[in-house]
Amino acid sequence: MRATVLYGVGDVRVENVPDARLIEPTDALLAVSRACICGSDLWPYKLMEPVETGRRMGHEAIGVVEAVGADVHTLKVGDVVVMPFAFSDGTCVFCHEGLHTSCVHGGFFGTVEVPGAQAEAVRIPLADGTLVVLPVGKDDALMASLLTLSDVMGTGHHAARAAKVGRGKTVAVIGDGAVGLCAVIAARRLGAERIIMMGHHPDRVALAKAFGATDVVSERGEQAIERVRALTAGFGVHSVLECVGTDQAMRTATGIVRPGGAVGRVGVPHYEAIPGSEPAFYNNVTVSGGPAPVRAYIEELLPDVLEGRIEPGRVFDRVVSLDEVPDGYRAMNEREAIKVMVKP
Amino acid sequence: MRATVLYGVGDVRVENVPDARLIEPTDALLAVSRACICGSDLWPYKLMEPVETGRRMGHEAIGVVEAVGADVHTLKVGDVVVMPFAFSDGTCVFCHEGLHTSCVHGGFFGTVEVPGAQAEAVRIPLADGTLVVLPVGKDDALMASLLTLSDVMGTGHHAARAAKVGRGKTVAVIGDGAVGLCAVIAARRLGAERIIMMGHHPDRVALAKAFGATDVVSERGEQAIERVRALTAGFGVHSVLECVGTDQAMRTATGIVRPGGAVGRVGVPHYEAIPGSEPAFYNNVTVSGGPAPVRAYIEELLPDVLEGRIEPGRVFDRVVSLDEVPDGYRAMNEREAIKVMVKP
Repeated sequence: MRATVLYGVGDVRVENVPDARLIEPTDALLAVSRACICGSDLWPYKLMEPVETGRRMGHEAIGVVEAVGADVHTLKVGDVVVMPFAFSDGTCVFCHEGLHTSCVHGGFFGTVEVPGAQAEAVRIPLADGTLVVLPVGKDDALMASLLTLSDVMGTGHHAARAAKVGRGKTVAVIGDGAVGLCAVIAARRLGAERIIMMGHHPDRVALAKAFGATDVVSERGEQAIERVRALTAGFGVHSVLECVGTDQAMRTATGIVRPGGAVGRVGVPHYEAIPGSEPAFYNNVTVSGGPAPVRAYIEELLPDVLEGRIEPGRVFDRVVSLDEVPDGYRAMNEREAIKVMVKP
Repeated sequence: MRATVLYGVGDVRVENVPDARLIEPTDALLAVSRACICGSDLWPYKLMEPVETGRRMGHEAIGVVEAVGADVHTLKVGDVVVMPFAFSDGTCVFCHEGLHTSCVHGGFFGTVEVPGAQAEAVRIPLADGTLVVLPVGKDDALMASLLTLSDVMGTGHHAARAAKVGRGKTVAVIGDGAVGLCAVIAARRLGAERIIMMGHHPDRVALAKAFGATDVVSERGEQAIERVRALTAGFGVHSVLECVGTDQAMRTATGIVRPGGAVGRVGVPHYEAIPGSEPAFYNNVTVSGGPAPVRAYIEELLPDVLEGRIEPGRVFDRVVSLDEVPDGYRAMNEREAIKVMVKP
C-alpha cells in the first residue's frame, strides 16, 4: 500500500510499504477515507534528525473498518469511524478519568513506533477503546468537520477547558493555525463573551471572526501584550489558549493573562522551562494543558457537528491526494494553506 | 515605638522608630498582641542587598484596634482582629473574586514601602477590607492557631486548593516548614486519603504525622521521586503542595505528580522559569498557586480553629519578646525552630 514517510527535514515521501494488517486480537484495520496534515507534523518536518527507516506520518483520520481482531467487540466491518490521534484501551484508570492520552496501554499514531494515517490503511491498536463509530456514510457532507474530531477541534476544546473558559469570560487565542481557529469555536461554544484572536494572516483572521472572534490583535511581542491590556482595561484576559508551543508564545501568554486567570497550552512545547515563573506566581496564574484527550471529547462535540452548530471543517482550505502529500506539507509549512485534507 | 528592621543579610535589628499613626481616613492603628517570623522572611534575611533605611519586617499579626480613621465603618477601638499578610479594599473586582492579593488598591505588609508587624504597633491601610474581628479576648488560649490565619494556615490551604486536593486524593507535601505542616492540615481537612510528607527533621515529621500525614519520604532529589512513585504504584500523586520555592523543589514536584494531577505552589519562587515544561505538558499537569488570598479564607477556616477541629498553632515552637526577634530569625534560619511567635 501507499503511505507517507518522513526521513528528515523537509524530506517527506509517499512510498510503497507492506500492507497494514491485524497483529493483535484487539486491533482493527482501517481503510482511510480522509486523513490530514497537522500543524504538529511540521515540527518534525522542520527539525527531525535524519532516520534511515523513516517515520510513518499522520495521526488524524476517518475511515471504514475493513477487519477486526478476535477480541474486538464493539466494531464491525463496514463501520465508518473516527480515529483519535492517540489510541487507548478505554478501561484503565486514566481512561476512566477522561485522560486517554495517558492510557497505561496507549500510544500515539504517526510516531517512530506506530505507523500513521497519511496512508491507504492504518492498523488501530486497542480498537474498541480507540475508535468511535459515526452515524454517517463515508462521503457525508460533514466529513471535514467530523475529521477535526480526530485532533484539532478536540485540541482547541482542550485548550479552552484547561484555560477555564466559561460564560462571560474574556479569552485570548494565541496562534491562528487550525488549532487556534478551533479554539475560537470552543471558546465561543463554552460561552466566552469576548474572544481576542492574536494573528495577522487576513484569511485566518477572517475565519476566526466567522467562528466568533470579537477582536483581533495583529501586533507581535511586547506590542501585542500592550494591545491586549489596552483592550481589557489593563487587567488582561481570564483565559489564554496557547496554540503555538514556542517560548515566545508562552511569554505572551503570561504577559496577557489576568490575575487569577489561566493559560491552557496545547501547542507542543519547544521550550525547556515555562517562562514567567514569577509573574505567574504573583498573579496566581494557572498553567495547564497538554495533549488533548480527544477520545473523551468526541461524545460531547459530535452532536454539535452533526447538527451544524459548529463547523470546524472550515479550517480545511486544501485537499490533496496521497501522492500530493509532500506538496501539502510544503504548503502548510509556508503558511499557504491553513490545513490540508488528504483523500487517499 | 520599637520595631524590627532588616538592613541586609543577617542584619536584623530592633530599633526605636516613629510611632505608627493613622495617615489615611481608611486606616486603622493596631496594637500588636502577637506577631511572628515567617519562612518567607528568611529569603531577604539570607539574600537582601544592604539598604540604608532598612525594611520594616513582619506581615502576620493579631492585635487590638487602637484608633480608626474617619472612613472606617466596620471596626471599633478595642476590637481584637487578625491581620492578613496583604491589605485589600474588599470591594474591587479581584477582592470580589476572592483574590485579595491582587486587590487593585492593595499591597503587602513588611515590604520596603509598607511597615511591618514585628513591632509594637502597625498602621493598617484599607482597614475595613483588611482586618477580621475575632470573637475572642486578646490572650485567648487559641491565640497561636488564630495567628496562623494571618498567613501560614491560609497559605497551606491555598496550596491544597491550587493542587485540587479533594476527597480520596493522594497528596504529597514538599517542605516541612510551618507552611508545609499547615498544608498537611489543609489536605486532611479537604478529605485527602493519603498524605505524603517529604521532610527529614524528626520533630517536624512527628508534627506532620500528628496533623494527618500518612507517609513520610525523607530521601532527597531523584531518590525522593523514586520513593514517592514506589508508594503510588508508579503513578505519582494527584496533588503536590509545593511549600519551598526552589527550582529543585519544583523539579521534585513535576517528578512526582501523576498524569492529570496538579502542583499548587506557595513557596515564593526563586527560579526564573518553571522547570519540567515537557513532562508537565505530556502528563497534562496543572501548575497553579501564588500568594494566598488568606483574607478570603479566614471565614472558612475560623470555625474549625475556634471549635478545635484544627490546631495549626502547634507549628509555633518558640516564643520571643520583641527585643529577642533577631535571635528568632537566627533560630528559624538554622532550623532550630519551626516557627517563632513574637509577643511585643
